[in-house]
Amino acid sequence: MTQRFRLTRRVEFNHCDPAGMVFYPRYFEMISATIERFLADAIDYSWQDMGVFSGGMGTPLGRIEVRFANPGYLGEDLDFDLTLTRLGRSSAVFAIRCSCSNQTRFDCDATIIHARTGGGSSVPWPDAVRARMAAYLTTSEPTDEKTTA
Amino acid sequence: MTQRFRLTRRVEFNHCDPAGMVFYPRYFEMISATIERFLADAIDYSWQDMGVFSGGMGTPLGRIEVRFANPGYLGEDLDFDLTLTRLGRSSAVFAIRCSCSNQTRFDCDATIIHARTGGGSSVPWPDAVRARMAAYLTTSEPTDEKTTA
Amino acid sequence: MTQRFRLTRRVEFNHCDPAGMVFYPRYFEMISATIERFLADAIDYSWQDMGVFSGGMGTPLGRIEVRFANPGYLGEDLDFDLTLTRLGRSSAVFAIRCSCSNQTRFDCDATIIHARTGGGSSVPWPDAVRARMAAYLTTSEPTDEKTTA
Amino acid sequence: MTQRFRLTRRVEFNHCDPAGMVFYPRYFEMISATIERFLADAIDYSWQDMGVFSGGMGTPLGRIEVRFANPGYLGEDLDFDLTLTRLGRSSAVFAIRCSCSNQTRFDCDATIIHARTGGGSSVPWPDAVRARMAAYLTTSEPTDEKTTA
Repeated sequence: MTQRFRLTRRVEFNHCDPAGMVFYPRYFEMISATIERFLADAIDYSWQDMGVFSGGMGTPLGRIEVRFANPGYLGEDLDFDLTLTRLGRSSAVFAIRCSCSNQTRFDCDATIIHARTGGGSSVPWPDAVRARMAAYLTTSEPTDEKTTA
Repeated sequence: MTQRFRLTRRVEFNHCDPAGMVFYPRYFEMISATIERFLADAIDYSWQDMGVFSGGMGTPLGRIEVRFANPGYLGEDLDFDLTLTRLGRSSAVFAIRCSCSNQTRFDCDATIIHARTGGGSSVPWPDAVRARMAAYLTTSEPTDEKTTA
Repeated sequence: MTQRFRLTRRVEFNHCDPAGMVFYPRYFEMISATIERFLADAIDYSWQDMGVFSGGMGTPLGRIEVRFANPGYLGEDLDFDLTLTRLGRSSAVFAIRCSCSNQTRFDCDATIIHARTGGGSSVPWPDAVRARMAAYLTTSEPTDEKTTA
Repeated sequence: MTQRFRLTRRVEFNHCDPAGMVFYPRYFEMISATIERFLADAIDYSWQDMGVFSGGMGTPLGRIEVRFANPGYLGEDLDFDLTLTRLGRSSAVFAIRCSCSNQTRFDCDATIIHARTGGGSSVPWPDAVRARMAAYLTTSEPTDEKTTA
């Protein structure tokens, strides 16, 4: 059965714009934090482990799409639910739903690449990492082991 | 002939992550600033004019997609070039290319809705605003005056 | 006995600069969040309650000073411990120590004013608010009920 | 005669809080940018030159104090005027005034240390750097060449 990773964040004053709603660049910080915590806590392969500071590996974004459904407001507890819709040889596509009390705030698709830092070439996921990530896949089809990036 | 709106931003320390590259949520602040300056400077219909602070109109995002091509680095002067690919009755789709010395950093499609603040209903663009925005359309086809949102 | 309010924050990637340490403007977001949560959770007088969005009251900063002791790093759990060193008629001085495993990151003194939003005049704390805040005072001397701001 | 370094920034939507004023952590990003541009443009000793990314030198903050005078609002052009009030062997104290049309927003004193990155020991300013910085000193007294940090 597909696992799901959840991060919950309280909307604070610093996230809100003069219209009193969450300023959307702040959502991207929360999306980044969701991926960061997923890799560290669920996959045991944190950015520090990858050596993102020391010329090792990182997970730059290839593409991100967000479809907004309802505005978010100060004081709300937002749930960020992450699953995978695709697991490539050296990439992964996340589906992240942000909701509050089951009302959707937005849906996000984000493609990350496992690659050398500094714009370097992509590198296959380590086997153990790949195995742990597969538990979060929502599709039944086998992941394509031969796909590049 | 299609007009194009350009905002240029220097990448500063505060935009960069521990991997030494632009942290992508900062790009969304720059995208927001590009749309903000376009509406204020090119269209003469700023968020203040709309009354975004005082229960008037705003331009919430409906959808945004960014496709990253190359990482951005400290000290670069980034050009954000904005045109419109669609102008609906109460919406607009922007195409924003971010580049540095003509090398693409990312391409962005962003749909904004002209709507009452606080998650309110959409409202048609004022005629004068609409006319000025049309100059930035890249498509030759007539804009659909009857499309909702 | 003096009470102390604690907020704990994990240092995330989005808080860190290209030197791999916490970028200090992010600390000020955490300081703001500490004061925000203190007022809401410990004092039961949140910014929403004050009407910060609707032309009511707010708590603008009058002065802030931070003395840095040690750099903060990615992955650290930072404790923000807040007490009061002074409680004026319509102001308060917070002492906030940020530490990780009891090693100090910085010490902060921050003066807030209870005032009408938009740069308006100061207004005395409501009695019930004042009474709850007094429990966090570290000084034994009586607070000066007559001091302005 | 004392020189002064000026950075001007337009207040954008992303700098403002739900009360419609500049959210003060954003001011610290602007203060950081003022120091960044001063070192790079006026002193010709940028953070990149120091090797802040590559295990070289940096200029961590030792202490910062800000006294707020008036709130800042969306659309304002803020001038950040920087001079030095002290130039130590391996430190410097900046006085930064933020104003809009000569009305003060805040006054800031910031002490930076010239030190190895990662919390390392302080290192004297290079002579050429020191000479260029001295032109921005507002005090007539000789700087103390022997003072540590």
